[in-house]
Amino acid sequence: MAIHTTAHTALIEALTARLGPGSVLTEAGDIGGHLVESRGLYRGEALAVVRPRDRDEVAFVVGECARAGIAVVPQGGNTGLVGGSVPYGGIVLSLDRLQTIREVDPVNATMTVEAGCILKSVHEAADRVGYFFPLSLPSEGSCRIGGNLATNAGGTAVLRYGNMRELTLGLEVVLADGRIWNGLKGLRKDNTGYDLRDLFIGSEGTLGIITAAVLKLFPKPQARGTAFIGCTSPHQALKLFERLRDGAGDQLTAFEYMTDFGLEIVLRHRPAAVRPFAGRHPSYALVELSSAQRDADLQSPLEAILGSALEEGLIEDAVIGASGAQSAALWALREELSEVQRLEGGSIKHDVAVPVSRVAEFIDAASGACEAAMPGIRVCAFGHFGDGNIHFNLSQPVGMDKSAYLAEWERFNRIVHDIVHRMNGSISAEHGIGLIKRDELPLYKDPVALDLMRSLKQTLDPRNILNPGKVIAIGAVGPAAFFTAGQP
Amino acid sequence: MAIHTTAHTALIEALTARLGPGSVLTEAGDIGGHLVESRGLYRGEALAVVRPRDRDEVAFVVGECARAGIAVVPQGGNTGLVGGSVPYGGIVLSLDRLQTIREVDPVNATMTVEAGCILKSVHEAADRVGYFFPLSLPSEGSCRIGGNLATNAGGTAVLRYGNMRELTLGLEVVLADGRIWNGLKGLRKDNTGYDLRDLFIGSEGTLGIITAAVLKLFPKPQARGTAFIGCTSPHQALKLFERLRDGAGDQLTAFEYMTDFGLEIVLRHRPAAVRPFAGRHPSYALVELSSAQRDADLQSPLEAILGSALEEGLIEDAVIGASGAQSAALWALREELSEVQRLEGGSIKHDVAVPVSRVAEFIDAASGACEAAMPGIRVCAFGHFGDGNIHFNLSQPVGMDKSAYLAEWERFNRIVHDIVHRMNGSISAEHGIGLIKRDELPLYKDPVALDLMRSLKQTLDPRNILNPGKVIAIGAVGPAAFFTAGQP
Repeated sequence: MAIHTTAHTALIEALTARLGPGSVLTEAGDIGGHLVESRGLYRGEALAVVRPRDRDEVAFVVGECARAGIAVVPQGGNTGLVGGSVPYGGIVLSLDRLQTIREVDPVNATMTVEAGCILKSVHEAADRVGYFFPLSLPSEGSCRIGGNLATNAGGTAVLRYGNMRELTLGLEVVLADGRIWNGLKGLRKDNTGYDLRDLFIGSEGTLGIITAAVLKLFPKPQARGTAFIGCTSPHQALKLFERLRDGAGDQLTAFEYMTDFGLEIVLRHRPAAVRPFAGRHPSYALVELSSAQRDADLQSPLEAILGSALEEGLIEDAVIGASGAQSAALWALREELSEVQRLEGGSIKHDVAVPVSRVAEFIDAASGACEAAMPGIRVCAFGHFGDGNIHFNLSQPVGMDKSAYLAEWERFNRIVHDIVHRMNGSISAEHGIGLIKRDELPLYKDPVALDLMRSLKQTLDPRNILNPGKVIAIGAVGPAAFFTAGQP
Repeated sequence: MAIHTTAHTALIEALTARLGPGSVLTEAGDIGGHLVESRGLYRGEALAVVRPRDRDEVAFVVGECARAGIAVVPQGGNTGLVGGSVPYGGIVLSLDRLQTIREVDPVNATMTVEAGCILKSVHEAADRVGYFFPLSLPSEGSCRIGGNLATNAGGTAVLRYGNMRELTLGLEVVLADGRIWNGLKGLRKDNTGYDLRDLFIGSEGTLGIITAAVLKLFPKPQARGTAFIGCTSPHQALKLFERLRDGAGDQLTAFEYMTDFGLEIVLRHRPAAVRPFAGRHPSYALVELSSAQRDADLQSPLEAILGSALEEGLIEDAVIGASGAQSAALWALREELSEVQRLEGGSIKHDVAVPVSRVAEFIDAASGACEAAMPGIRVCAFGHFGDGNIHFNLSQPVGMDKSAYLAEWERFNRIVHDIVHRMNGSISAEHGIGLIKRDELPLYKDPVALDLMRSLKQTLDPRNILNPGKVIAIGAVGPAAFFTAGQP
């Protein structure tokens, strides 16, 4: 429990006076869900959870906290995977009530939405005007746009459409002193000074509180072609990727990867899952072509490219979804994989990226190193192969004690991240730094970059009140960055 | 002529000692071309033009200037249109010798190039490995990648591929104190901290000196379809744009616009130019579909969409290029327009953007306001309609004195930019701020944004030595921002 001071009491009173008691929650029963990370890796504490209704209330809250020198930890759907939204003192600023879709402009192909909108509701609003918002994540039913922006979210559509950064044109942000920056422009071109937008996107709530954004919409895909392919190795999968990119161009909208171990555990734990073809293969690719043209024929190019790849021995087997239901069943094999890993015991996780040209080499090198470091460890490498982004997860050896296994987390981080670093890669491709990778970042990040980050933080948040202790440690940093609670 | 102090002499000696006399030019005959803006709007002065050979020499030069407190004005091809690379004291740092293509990685679809590479040579290097780098500008034979990055260059391919920002994955930058930030990563996903890359891109050399970049490559378009279309108004053109975007999706790679006046002056001054069809129309669109698929049929969708638009009276006339030569002739009508305007006397220029949904309304409103403000003025609105980016240029009334006309520059800026501002647009879509719009920017930019820009400049360049007086005025700002020299 936090120790309340007079300053705390005065702040809570001031916030309650302006927002009303229903917007300033302090009872343990009301705020408990806001204090924990979604997987239970971290548990924090807060004076209150504050739920402003609009941008001006957000600005008021931040301004009051700035004056009192009290930390503000912003939360959207609280679905992040790096401990970035767990409070250690101060208040939780929940954006969940800022749910207005302020404007939809189909001719400009943009939508202006508030930070608390749930991603799925943005999908639906785009759909209602005949458009498509591409960001797609497992948590899309509960994650919120503000969190997607704060973490520069990725997902399965990055290959064609880019990360959240590339999907955003303008922002509205409450700064650390409570001022509001209005950068809500829906322009494809604007060279009037420094790019403030991209400074806030991906800053995990440490530089400002994003309250609204202008998002790009796209013509709705009218035709899709999906295939599941068996390969002997990630090197074969990489050759197939090149073949598809060069042959299908922009129509290639997904190229996902999984291993034989990954497919087998999906089939083991999901009775509804159907084996795509009889044989087993060391590596699998899930491929999607799509087009905004209503009558586009995607089966033919898929058949042609996969057919010649089979003939040449570049791939071992392939199945093309003959119907929407079949395609959905192929996608389900990939989507279920995130969830079923926990049914195989402890999992040590990495979210890494390397240049696409080195992704097969990375999978081989890291798998070999981990298997050598612990016989029986089961590599579950999967994810966004076409972006060079692999979720390199390691399931525990069968029969090993789970907590003994998880105690090896940092050792395997070193093994995997050292290989990533040698390949000029990233130790956090799409999840961010938060708390879980904060103290690891200096091992791999260019020291000049770290110094610039520190300078930017001090410039934009000189009192260090915005999500303090996340991303970079400045001053008093709260808890040790690495969790000790173990996994659920 | 600048007054040389002991500090200046010591600096020149130190630079000469390290780089050699051939790299530190001080004779008027050697440096004259580096002191003027490409159209002659500005003429500055400099102690020397310094031509380092590599990144480490750049770092040395900037470090020495930082210690001496002497300004560094970076130059690439010196083709900018806003006076951003004109020196007012200090040294010119020419990046023209940093021309190494450090790496080409076709599998990652990236190329690592130094800042002094000419854009055209980057096109050619991409072509040699079967890829395509999309940035396309009139000055591509002489502009350099460093300048393209510093100004976040745009051009005719933004509709499909984005600005220079969207074409860049990593950067290497020499900071104001001479340190080097190595951010040369070729990753599609990297969420390890704040986005430094986009802070430097578009900062016009005022926050750091970009020495190299990792650029994205794309599958080469294998098929193209080009059409030239006559419309009764920009509103018709906008409806056509929507129709094409929704029907052709990603295949729509250009949607350019020009007026009857624009086409007529091209035909008047370019004897080789061919009228696309017999009749004249108030507005014209130049449209391109392209595809990376070798056998893609782009004529059929173009014919289908334009055919039904003609039937419905949405457009007045259209011609589809039946051969590569015919398509090139249609493109030439648009490309020549930039150049021929000067043959019609004085031209008051604006490079603006509005949401695409308001681009027709903007053209109408601004044309009406300017024609009312000066009877006989000839509106030459043209450009990247599909991005909402219009070069809203105003040719002088026939017979008017040119300098009397150009003396009205600021009055017309107010008229046009006030309309842009009301439409939540940008007064500099793709050219930047430089000197020419620096003192106008505070009239239209959110004051909080300006304040953030000032803070960032002070953080990254506390002594104000990097391209001082450009983009934002801090401390002693050199010349008045608005030129007085008149046009060539």
